[in-house]
Formats: sequence, structure tokens, C-alpha cells
Amino acid sequence: MNYHNNNRKRYNYEKDKSSPRQFAGRKSESADNAQETKTDSRAAKKDNRKTPVKIIPLGGLNEIGKNMTAFECSNDIFIVDCGLAFPDSEMLGVDIVIPDFTYIERNQAKVRGVVLTHGHEDHIGGLAYLLKRINVPVYATKLTLGLVDGKLKEHGLSGKVKLCEVTPKKTVKMGCMAVEFISVNHSIPDSVGLAIHTPAGVLVHTGDFKVDYTPINGKPIDLARFGELGSKGVLALMADSTNAERPGFTQSEKKVGNSFETLFTRAEGKRIIIATFSSNIHRIQQIIDCAVRTGRKIAVFGRSMVNVITTAIELGYLEAPSGTIIDIDLMNRYDSSQIVLITTGSQGEPMSALTRMAMNDHKKVNINCNDFIIISATPIPGNEKFVTKVVNELMKSGAEVVYEAMYEVHVSGHACQEELKLMLALTRPKFFIPVHGEYKHLKKHAQLALEMGIPENNIIIGEIGNVIETDGVDMRVTSRVPAGRILVDGLGVGDVGSIVLRDRKHLAQDGLIIVVIAIDKASNIIASGPDIISRGFVYVRESEELIDEARQVLNTTLAQCSIHDLREWNSLKTKLKDALSEYIYSKTKRSPMILPIIMEI
Amino acid sequence: MNYHNNNRKRYNYEKDKSSPRQFAGRKSESADNAQETKTDSRAAKKDNRKTPVKIIPLGGLNEIGKNMTAFECSNDIFIVDCGLAFPDSEMLGVDIVIPDFTYIERNQAKVRGVVLTHGHEDHIGGLAYLLKRINVPVYATKLTLGLVDGKLKEHGLSGKVKLCEVTPKKTVKMGCMAVEFISVNHSIPDSVGLAIHTPAGVLVHTGDFKVDYTPINGKPIDLARFGELGSKGVLALMADSTNAERPGFTQSEKKVGNSFETLFTRAEGKRIIIATFSSNIHRIQQIIDCAVRTGRKIAVFGRSMVNVITTAIELGYLEAPSGTIIDIDLMNRYDSSQIVLITTGSQGEPMSALTRMAMNDHKKVNINCNDFIIISATPIPGNEKFVTKVVNELMKSGAEVVYEAMYEVHVSGHACQEELKLMLALTRPKFFIPVHGEYKHLKKHAQLALEMGIPENNIIIGEIGNVIETDGVDMRVTSRVPAGRILVDGLGVGDVGSIVLRDRKHLAQDGLIIVVIAIDKASNIIASGPDIISRGFVYVRESEELIDEARQVLNTTLAQCSIHDLREWNSLKTKLKDALSEYIYSKTKRSPMILPIIMEI
Repeated sequence: MNYHNNNRKRYNYEKDKSSPRQFAGRKSESADNAQETKTDSRAAKKDNRKTPVKIIPLGGLNEIGKNMTAFECSNDIFIVDCGLAFPDSEMLGVDIVIPDFTYIERNQAKVRGVVLTHGHEDHIGGLAYLLKRINVPVYATKLTLGLVDGKLKEHGLSGKVKLCEVTPKKTVKMGCMAVEFISVNHSIPDSVGLAIHTPAGVLVHTGDFKVDYTPINGKPIDLARFGELGSKGVLALMADSTNAERPGFTQSEKKVGNSFETLFTRAEGKRIIIATFSSNIHRIQQIIDCAVRTGRKIAVFGRSMVNVITTAIELGYLEAPSGTIIDIDLMNRYDSSQIVLITTGSQGEPMSALTRMAMNDHKKVNINCNDFIIISATPIPGNEKFVTKVVNELMKSGAEVVYEAMYEVHVSGHACQEELKLMLALTRPKFFIPVHGEYKHLKKHAQLALEMGIPENNIIIGEIGNVIETDGVDMRVTSRVPAGRILVDGLGVGDVGSIVLRDRKHLAQDGLIIVVIAIDKASNIIASGPDIISRGFVYVRESEELIDEARQVLNTTLAQCSIHDLREWNSLKTKLKDALSEYIYSKTKRSPMILPIIMEI
Repeated sequence: MNYHNNNRKRYNYEKDKSSPRQFAGRKSESADNAQETKTDSRAAKKDNRKTPVKIIPLGGLNEIGKNMTAFECSNDIFIVDCGLAFPDSEMLGVDIVIPDFTYIERNQAKVRGVVLTHGHEDHIGGLAYLLKRINVPVYATKLTLGLVDGKLKEHGLSGKVKLCEVTPKKTVKMGCMAVEFISVNHSIPDSVGLAIHTPAGVLVHTGDFKVDYTPINGKPIDLARFGELGSKGVLALMADSTNAERPGFTQSEKKVGNSFETLFTRAEGKRIIIATFSSNIHRIQQIIDCAVRTGRKIAVFGRSMVNVITTAIELGYLEAPSGTIIDIDLMNRYDSSQIVLITTGSQGEPMSALTRMAMNDHKKVNINCNDFIIISATPIPGNEKFVTKVVNELMKSGAEVVYEAMYEVHVSGHACQEELKLMLALTRPKFFIPVHGEYKHLKKHAQLALEMGIPENNIIIGEIGNVIETDGVDMRVTSRVPAGRILVDGLGVGDVGSIVLRDRKHLAQDGLIIVVIAIDKASNIIASGPDIISRGFVYVRESEELIDEARQVLNTTLAQCSIHDLREWNSLKTKLKDALSEYIYSKTKRSPMILPIIMEI
């Protein structure tokens, strides 16, 4: 059933002719009529105002990752995506970062479901944590659901959540709103953009997208539908800003296949090892196709690579002739020239299969001069040094390593400026909200929209927690809801906060010194100590003099204390801390954490 | 005096015609004669063998930074450069990294001096630490010495070291060797390459270089001298590998000036803020020139920027008409459109002037929509996220920020592949040692040399500590000397080693839990405790239950201990640690450092 068609009238957004929407070339015309239409315009505005809709970004603005947006109208809420972000260098020891779900939990009675645009971690990685708090149905395409299912199993949620498969061109009702799924291209198959039909008008959310006219699965982005929506009237466009800094067009995934062809020829006689993102199933398909054409068998390395390939084959997203993919233990039955390894580790992740191979720490694979290695990825900012380390080590083992941009072994999954303009030109939105990116990306994307004639006041660069409200005539930020980042460390969700991080940073910088004293309760006399224990500060055996003198400083401080002082533990602790801190800094120009501990006997 | 000319005969390297040096196109010819000349060749080799020379890299190979090489012949040693490296992400709390000077200290009686190629930190930043160990003369060009002098003052060495100014084309005697200085282009003026005249032959060391036919000071690299040396016979070339991965030519510094011209026009009416490397004096000259042409005054921000500009003006490397550079306190006498700020912070360094401006944390500068900001630099790998953060914040304040590659506001200071080939073609070395770079850079550079006909056996990819020995006929690694990295943290040089770093990493990841117990010596009874103190683990107030249960685990463990156990403190500590560790992991999947402390009463 195509829900959208049956309900077109209800959700159809009436084009507001008096709106200041202007595309290049039409500007002067509307300017001439501005004065005359002013009074009419006010009346028209009033008539056109609809039931307001709230767009509430809870992640993905001013940051890379943890994409999540709530759409709310009357008594209904639904959520688009629920991703994770990776910790930045300040978040010591943190495993992942997820959005703050407070607003959703407070309004859980209204929540009709979660809609997913695709199966990347930054769009589905926080879902299990959300579903533990509120159990709502999840709507997504087949592959996305397949990947979600794996995650739910890990979290003990398997079978406990309603998973609803959707297909492009179909629409799902979310209370008084409805979500239509539109096929887009991205670096994972089965990605969709959304047309959200609301009483106030149609909102288009691109999800992550690029325009690939020659995608591997033969299904280019449904530009026609975006155009159709644009013709009928789009109230607001929310579009992926990841590559908004990059001019031109993103290359087709097919480009990488062509590079593989060339490189497979060059690697003749050698074992080929290719590292890439496990979720890039089209790329893996191209590797399989090259392997089949050159008579090579494929062995798969890395937990996530094995998982994704298994799921993708099961669900029909990856085709490999029977016998092409072999068990890694059967590798040595073949000559090196008959083998391709597909592995994780394209970002130099320390525990990944490729990194372990590079460090001579992999049980099954020893790198040598008979290896031809392709790193089919670009380092994500922050990972450059990890990748460099892996490349260095692989090369030291004698392997040939292809990783540079010039070999075209990677293309982006996100739209560059010309594609972003294309999306704006097709959907012709009245309002524009750039999403998915740091501030600089959102700003660049906003500038593109401005250049294309969308008035500055109709472009909203939002923040997470903003309530962006529209009645079909106006759109503005009207209020704010709780939003932020929740840190996940091991099993702990949210128990690592700013104080814990501040302490970890302090400990990481200069280590710590513990001072222990035992005081006799009855007599207020020091029964033992002061003892000094340090970790992460200096190598104690080589700094005995420093530690001895530090103990003397503490003894001097204690000697100056009266019996009264020995009762006031807090003040005593501060005195010891200050004296030791000053001494240590004068000697080393370091400020370790100093922890005075007083035991009462 | 041109030392080289007067001593040409002594140091002249006799071209070894039988050597397997082959340039492209000459390969087949020598191959044909290989058999016939074999016997002759052996005799010739014997005759041609000279007093051996040792090349000992102590830094800069398989790493970026801390460049340092010792050259040794008979009873003489001299050192080329003594740089620092910046700590990698594993070296928590470390300020800088310097080379291991053990070999130099052991042989200090032989050391004739230190020769510097240019004034960048990775070539001079370790010098003060070396000079504290051995006081030897330093030879360098004027600007380099000016920058060194500043460093020596900081280290209390001012006036205590002999600083000898040299100029290009001049030669300095180093015992039985002599060093000739050759002008090169780089991102700091007064950079030189070296021709090292030794009994075994001429060694050419490029230093850091690029080929700039239109440099700002009008002095292109002395390609002619490199060619002349090549014609006469170069025994070995050591060349900068930093950009060996990049095809083509590095652009002229003048390109950046042209971009500035365009951007100054675009910024009309706004305040201009430019962040760049303080040592890039030619770039600063171009900013000054643009400012003068557009009638703007210049204010300088950031300690290192102020220092370098002051030194450069004093020494005549920077020209600014009187009154062009104004005191920052006089800025507000001018309209924004009449001002250019030059500042540090192009790498997003957290404490830099630009970062403080971005974070609204600078006393003198508030960023607003009337600011036009140019980041004239490319992020060094590892700094991308810092730069992005600064760009985001500047943009949020409404400023226009130009930072992307497409605006051509930065060019590299290092030679790309075509320039590296040019250097190889000019010097036509018998042996080739790629230097300055990680393994991947050295390997790429070696491949270029191989493609140009240098036989594989004549290319040495070395490691720090290698003793590369040559007698003019052969060259090979013959032994090894101590080499490595010394970590500097505050005033401590070398007191932070692997154990301290391991502890800092552990503390940074999961924090720590301290368990304190007081035991009565006489009775072996627990007098107090166990008390638990944690830092960087969980926010204790919200985890009281966890801490209470942890205390119970400890009490249970203690209850199971006999009086004998309470005497064996090491075993008791291990028992407590294991029990607590297991409990904490089961509850949190985290492994904080656990420190049991027992006090004896």
C-alpha cells in the first residue's frame, strides 16, 4: 500500500505563494510586487497557518556522528536515526558517545517509532541504548534491519523489539504524520532519504546521500521523486552536509572497481590484501567480482567484516559464486597468487585484523614481500597517524602498499557541493536546515543555499536541543529541550561525566602522588606515615632523592601542625597537598594529582 | 675564505668508474661489460678504498622530527642538526622528545661542532639539551643562529656557547672533514644544504628543501652548485623525504602572496586576521607587503610570532616600513578595515592566540562578523581536529574563515617527487640514503632513486643508531650505536620512561581505586579500613552502591585471611587487588588501576 497516495490531500502542503522563497532569476520580479502584496500577504499567511510541527535535532548538528532527530506534531513523535559518535581525544577511556534521550523518555507515550535511513554506526549505533529505555517499533529497509538485528542480539534485545521492513516508494503512518522512503546512494546499500508528510507541509530529509549514476546495484538515487516533491512544494529540506566543503561531484563507486581491475593486474603472482569498511558492501562486491574474474579465492578477516558479509549474503545484498569465499584455515591450500584477503583495519584501528598483521601479531597471516596490500579508504580525521603506522609496518615487512589518493581506491559516500546544489534545485524548499556536520560544514551548506536564492531568514543552522517549529508559513527556533552527549564506558552509560574526565586527564598528564598518614583518634598523634606512593609521575627507583625530600617537606609541614590542626582533617589535607605540590612543581615543573589520605586508628 | 677551493685535491672524491651506478638509459651498456670488467673492478676497488667515514643517523629516520646525524672520520665527529619531535598520542603528558645523546657523550672528545641546516624546531629544538651535556661550537647561518640564541637564553646557556655564523658557498673545517654550505629554499629563510667533503668522498645532505624559482628573497636554491658537485662526483646523497609521496612540484611561496592579494580585496572593510607558522618569515613578509599596499597597520599576536618577527627584523630578514607594525594596545585607534592581525595558532594549538580568540578567551580580540580570517597552513597530521574546532568556533562568532586547500593560502616547504628527481639528477650520487621521514616516505623516495637507475644495493634505508660506513667504494651498515627517544616532561629529561607512560595510560583509560588498610604490627590485626578512594573511575556520589559492595568484597577477602596472611603483605595486596578487580570488571567491564596500600601501626 502506498500510504502517501491514499492520503495525499490530507498531507499536501499548500504552496504559499507569498512566501519569500526566491530562486536566482526570480528575485527582481517578487521585489517589484513586494509593496502591493504586503496586506494580502498577511491575510494569506494567517489562512495558511497549519497545525505546527516541531523538528528537534538531538544529535548530528555541530558534530560528526550520533545523528538523531525527533519530529513532533500534536500528540505524535517519531524519531529519525539513533547513532553513536566516537569519543574525541578529551574523552579518555570512553568507548562510545550516544545522544541524551531525556526528551524522548519524558514523552515516550507519544513516540510512534524509530525510522532509520541506513545501517551505519552513526545512524544506528545508539539504537539499542534507546530501545532499552523505550520499546517502540523500528522501521528500516531490509539490510539496515539485518544489521540492527545483530546489534540487538549483542544487547540481549533480540526478539523483544518490533522490526518493520520498509521499501523505497512506500509510506508509513506515524500518527498524524507519514514517512515516505526514497532511494538514495551512499556507501552502504539500502540507504533511504525521507519525505515526511505533515499537516504543516512536506519535510524532506536526505539522510546520508550521494548521487551515483552508475551504482553497483544499478539503482541510482530517485532524483525524479525528489523533483516531484519539489514541484508540489517542499516546506523544508534537511540535507547531509558532510562534504559541503568540497567542490564538484563525488565520484561513482564504479571508479574504485576500475582501480581494482588495474591493481589486480599489477599484483599478478602476489597475494592481495584489501582493507576497507565492512559496511561498504558494494565495494566488497567489486572485490569479489575482481577475484572471480582473476580466479582468486577470498578469505575474510575481522569480526565486523565477517558479520556484515554473512548478513549481506544471507539477505541477498552480496553475490559470490559458491566456493569463492573460503575458510581462512583453507588458505594454505592455495598459492598466494590465488588468494584475496578482505579485512577490517582500513582506519589503522589498533585491535583490527590489518593492524595485527602489520605488527606481526596475527596468527594466520604473515606479511612479506609477496603481498600486495590495498587500503581502500581515506583516514577519518584523527586516524591519520594510526593508518601511517600500519602502512609503515606493512612496508617494512616488504609488502607493496597502495593507499594514496592518486590510486583512486576510495570514493566518498557523501554528496559534494554540486550534488548538494542539485538536491536544493530539485526539492526547491521554502526553508533549509543543513544537517549532519560540524558548524563549518553546516555554514558552507547554508552558503550554497543562500547562493541559490533561499533567503537568509529561511535558513536555520540549528543546534541539538533546538525545537524548530513550523506552521507551514514560518519556521523558527521556539524553545529548547535537554540534549547532549552521554558517555558509554564499558557497561556504564552516563556514569562518566566531566569530573571523572577531568581526573583522568590530570592523571594522564602528570600521574599521581598518594600521601598516607594514620592518626590515633584518642591522642591525635600521628601513628604512622607519612608514606608516599606514586604512579605515572617519575620512575621512583631513579628519583629516590626527590621522593626523600618530598617526605621531608611533608614531615616539616606536619611538625608545624598543632594538635588542633590534626583534628581538622580537611585543613590538614590541604596543607599537605599545597606544600607537596609547591615542592614538586619547583623541582620538576609538573603538577601530579596529589591525594592525601588520612586513616583514623 | 672558501675552504673547499683551497683543499679541493685533498677531499676530492675520485669517481669510481667500475661502480654499478646506473642511470636510466645506461643500464644495458654497463650490463654488457659486466663480465669482462669483473677482475679489473676488484683491483680498482682495492686501490680506491679510502679512510672510512661513518654516517650515524641519531634521529629523523622512520619518524617525523628530531633530525640529527653524526659524521665520523678517524678522530673527528661533527653533528648535523639537533631537533626535537612532538610526542605522539601514546606519550601522555610528555612535552617534547629529543634524541638519545649517549653516543655523542661517549665520544665527546672527538666532537668538533654542530652544524645546523635551518632554524625549525625539528632541527634545532634539541640543541640546548645537547649543549648542556657537551659544549661545542655551533655553525649556522645568521637567522638560524638568531633563533638558536633565543633558545639558549631560555635554557640559561646564553653567552656560554660559541656560535659561528656561516654563509652559503663557504666551507668550515671539521677535523679531517669539511662542510660546505649550499643555499636551498624552504619555509624559513637562510636554509642550507651541505656538501660534506671527506677523505672517502663528497657526501651531499640536502637538509629540508624545496625548489622555488621565484622565492620571496630572490635567492633560488643553488642548483648549479649541486650540479657541479654531481659532475665532479658525489659519493652519497642524503635527501629530505617529507613529500616523497606527492607527485609533481611544490608551488612557489609567491603563489600564497597572490592568494593574499585576492583575499585582501575580498576582505575590504573588514579586519583581517592571518594565522601562520611564526618561522615562515617569507609568508609574513608577504602579509606585510599586502598590508602596506592596502594601507593597513599590523598587530602581532602570540609569543613565538612576536619573538620571531622581532629577531627577523633585527637581523634584516623582514622589512616593514616604520610605523607599519603597531603595538596591540593601539589597535583600537584604527578602524577594523585598517588592521591586519598576524597570529600564531594555525595548528589549532589549545593555548595559542588564535585558539583563545576563537574560544572568546582573548583579552584584546573579540571575533565578530566584521572579521576576515585566513588560516595560512595545512594541519599537520594529528592536528586536524584542533584546527576544525577553531574554525567552527570562529565561524560561530560570525567571522568569514578561509582555510581550505582551494584558496591556495599555503604551500609546502618540502620538495615533491619531481624536485626530488631533479636533486638526484643533479648530484648523480653513487649511493643514496633517503632521510627525514617515516618508513613510507623513505621507501617512496628510494623507489624514485631506483627508477632513476641507482642500483638497489646502493640505496640504504637506514634506522637511527645505524652506523653506515663507506670507504668510497662500498657503503653499508656495519654496526649500531645507542639511539632512541628521550622524553622531556617539565624539567625532567629522561625520567619518564615506559613504566611511567604505561601507568599514565592505564590511569587515563579507567582511573584508579585506592584501598587503604592499617594493620597493627604487634597483633597483626586490622586497625582501620579497608577504605576505598577512587579518582577518574566513576562519579562516586552516583555509584554508592557499587563502592559499598566493593568494600564488602574486600571485607570478605580479609575475613578469609589468617593472621599469617596478614603478615605477608605482598600476598595480601595481591589477594585484595584480584578480588576487587574481578568484582569491578564483572559490574562495569572496566579495569581501573587498583592500588592496595597497607599501613603499619
